[in-house]
Amino acid sequence: MTSALVNKQFRLAARPVGMPKNSDWSVTTEPVRDIVDGEIVVQSIYLSLDPAMRGWMNEGKSYIRPVAINEVMRAGGIGKVVASKSTKFAVGDYVSGATGVQNYWVGAADDKTAAFYKVDPKMAPLPKFMNALGMPGMTAYFGLLDVGMPKAGETVVVSGAAGAVGQTVGQVAKQKGCRVVGIAGGKDKCDFVVNELGFDACIDYKGGSVKDGLKEHCPNGVDIYFDNVGGEILDTVLTRINMKARIIICGAISQYNNTTPVKGPANYLSLLVNRARMEGIVVFDNAARFPEAAAEMGKWMAQGKFQTREDIVQGLDNFPDTLLMLFEGKNFGKLILQVAQE
Amino acid sequence: MTSALVNKQFRLAARPVGMPKNSDWSVTTEPVRDIVDGEIVVQSIYLSLDPAMRGWMNEGKSYIRPVAINEVMRAGGIGKVVASKSTKFAVGDYVSGATGVQNYWVGAADDKTAAFYKVDPKMAPLPKFMNALGMPGMTAYFGLLDVGMPKAGETVVVSGAAGAVGQTVGQVAKQKGCRVVGIAGGKDKCDFVVNELGFDACIDYKGGSVKDGLKEHCPNGVDIYFDNVGGEILDTVLTRINMKARIIICGAISQYNNTTPVKGPANYLSLLVNRARMEGIVVFDNAARFPEAAAEMGKWMAQGKFQTREDIVQGLDNFPDTLLMLFEGKNFGKLILQVAQE
Repeated sequence: MTSALVNKQFRLAARPVGMPKNSDWSVTTEPVRDIVDGEIVVQSIYLSLDPAMRGWMNEGKSYIRPVAINEVMRAGGIGKVVASKSTKFAVGDYVSGATGVQNYWVGAADDKTAAFYKVDPKMAPLPKFMNALGMPGMTAYFGLLDVGMPKAGETVVVSGAAGAVGQTVGQVAKQKGCRVVGIAGGKDKCDFVVNELGFDACIDYKGGSVKDGLKEHCPNGVDIYFDNVGGEILDTVLTRINMKARIIICGAISQYNNTTPVKGPANYLSLLVNRARMEGIVVFDNAARFPEAAAEMGKWMAQGKFQTREDIVQGLDNFPDTLLMLFEGKNFGKLILQVAQE
Repeated sequence: MTSALVNKQFRLAARPVGMPKNSDWSVTTEPVRDIVDGEIVVQSIYLSLDPAMRGWMNEGKSYIRPVAINEVMRAGGIGKVVASKSTKFAVGDYVSGATGVQNYWVGAADDKTAAFYKVDPKMAPLPKFMNALGMPGMTAYFGLLDVGMPKAGETVVVSGAAGAVGQTVGQVAKQKGCRVVGIAGGKDKCDFVVNELGFDACIDYKGGSVKDGLKEHCPNGVDIYFDNVGGEILDTVLTRINMKARIIICGAISQYNNTTPVKGPANYLSLLVNRARMEGIVVFDNAARFPEAAAEMGKWMAQGKFQTREDIVQGLDNFPDTLLMLFEGKNFGKLILQVAQE
C-alpha cells in the first residue's frame, strides 16, 4: 500500500511570458495510488534543473512535446524505488529518469517517457549522474566529439563554462589535447574553471569585454565554439572563428525568457567567410552510446583528471525560485534540487 | 605598341553607405602602357556583375581583400588577348580572369590575382563561361554537392532561383533526383524556373507568402536549403526544415546594402531542434576540381538537360546602374555587362 504517501507536485498553470513567475505554477497534493502488476513507485531524491526546461514550457513544435497546462512539470530526476510490482526494478534500487517535479512518480517500470535506468551509488555519488554521467555530460561529450571533432592543438571555446554542460565540454577537450578557453559570469566561476577544472583561461563576461578576452586568450583564433548561451556572446565569438570552424549550438540561455524575438546571430556571414559550420545537437540522439561515454569519463574521474561541481539547493517548495537561478546565472555548477534524503 | 589604346576604368572613389551611389565611383582614362616580356594586354569583352562585389567594396576582413580606394573595381571578365609578350597566351586567345571594370587589363600573363585561363568559344558561347561554366556555376555545383549532399527524393529549396547560382543549384539537384523548389521575385522568373529549367515549383516572394508557398510545395519539409538571400526568407525556411537538414550559406543579397546591422537568422535554434547544419561556402576552395564540374555540366548542356540564362547589358558606362539591378532584383538570369564586341 503506497496510499499513505503524499505526493506534492508542481504543475504548469500558465505558459510564462518572459521569466517564469510564481503564478505560472500550481501546487497540488494527492495520495500515491496503489500500483498494479508491472508498475513501480519512485521517490524523487534529486531533480535536475536545466535551461531546456524553459523551452518545454512554451507551446509549439520542438525536439520534445511541450508540457501541457496542468501537467506535472517535466524534470529529470534520480530517485529510489519505494514500491515495485515489476521484475525490472526492486525496492531500494536507485534509478535515473524523468520523474517530474514531484515527490513520487507512479507508473509502468518500462514507461518510455520516464525511461528509468538503474544507477549505482557505489560507482559515483548520485548527483554526478545528473552531471557528467547524466544528460549534461552526454550532451557535452557527444556534441564536442561528434560535431566539434576536436584535434590536438586546436582552440575550443565554451560558454556557460562553469555550468553542467560547459564543465564537461572543457575537460573532454583538454583530454583531447586542445587549448580550452571558457566564458563564464564572475571571477569565482572563472577561477574555478581554470584552477579546478584545468581550462587554459576563462573570460568573465560580467567583468570585461568578451571580444578583448578572445583576442588575448585565443591568439590563434577559435576552431570550435560550443555555445550554450546565444545572443551577444555568440555574435562576438563569430568574429574570431578560424577557417573551417565548427560551432555547436547546444542552447541559448540568454534568449529563453525573451519577450521579444530571439536575437539571431547578426555575424552569421562569418560562416561564409570562414567556410565554417554551425550545427545543432540534441542529446537523446546518442542514447545508445551513453554507456561508452560514461565509461570513459568515469575512468578519467577515477584517475583524478576530471572534476565536476554541483550546486544543490534543498526543498521541493523552492523549485520556482531555484529554477530562476539558471537564468540569472546564480547557480555555480550543475543545478540540482534535493527533495528527499538519500 | 598598345599605347594607342585608351583604357577607361571605374575606380572605387568612396566606400558606399548602403546602396552604391554614382559618387562612390570615379572614372579615369589612361593609355595602355607598353608591355614587357611575360606580359599581356587583355581587352575586356564581358564583365561579370555579382552580388559579392558589394562586399568587396567594404573595409574589413573577408574571404578576399577589399578593393582599395582609387583602385580599379574588381570584376571577373572574359576578354581577348590583344597583345602578348608571353608564351602562355597568344594574341586572339579568349581568356577568363579578374579583368576589373575597365577596357584593358595589363600585366603578367601568370598574374595570380587575375588568374587568367583560356576559354574555348567553340565549346560554349562566351557568356556561359560566366554562368554555369564559371564562378556561379562552380559555386552552385560544389556548394550543393559537397555541403548539401543531396540524396534522391530529398527536397531542395533555393533562393535567388532565377539568378546565376540558383539556376545551376536547381538543375544539378534535379539531375540528382531531388524535388526542387525555387524562390524568386516575380511571375516571369518563376515561370522561367519551372518551365525552362524544370524546377518542380517556384515561390514568388513578391507575389505571396513564402511560408504558405513552402507549406504547399514542400509537403515533406526541406532537406537542403541553398541560401543566396538571407534575411526574412532564410528565417522563414528555417521554420520548415527537416531533421538533419543542411543549409548552405552562399550569400545574403538582402543584407549587403544595409545601413543597419545584418539581420541574423532569429530562427537559428531550429538548427538545434532539427539537429541541422548551416555551413558557409566560398567557391575558390574547389578550384582544382572546376574542370570536373565543367565537364559534367557541359555534358548535360550538350544533352539538352541543362539551360542557363544570361541578362546582358551593353556598355561600360552603364556599370554603376547595372550593378544596382542585382540588389533591386531587376536582372533576369546571370547579369553580364558587355563592354566590347567579340
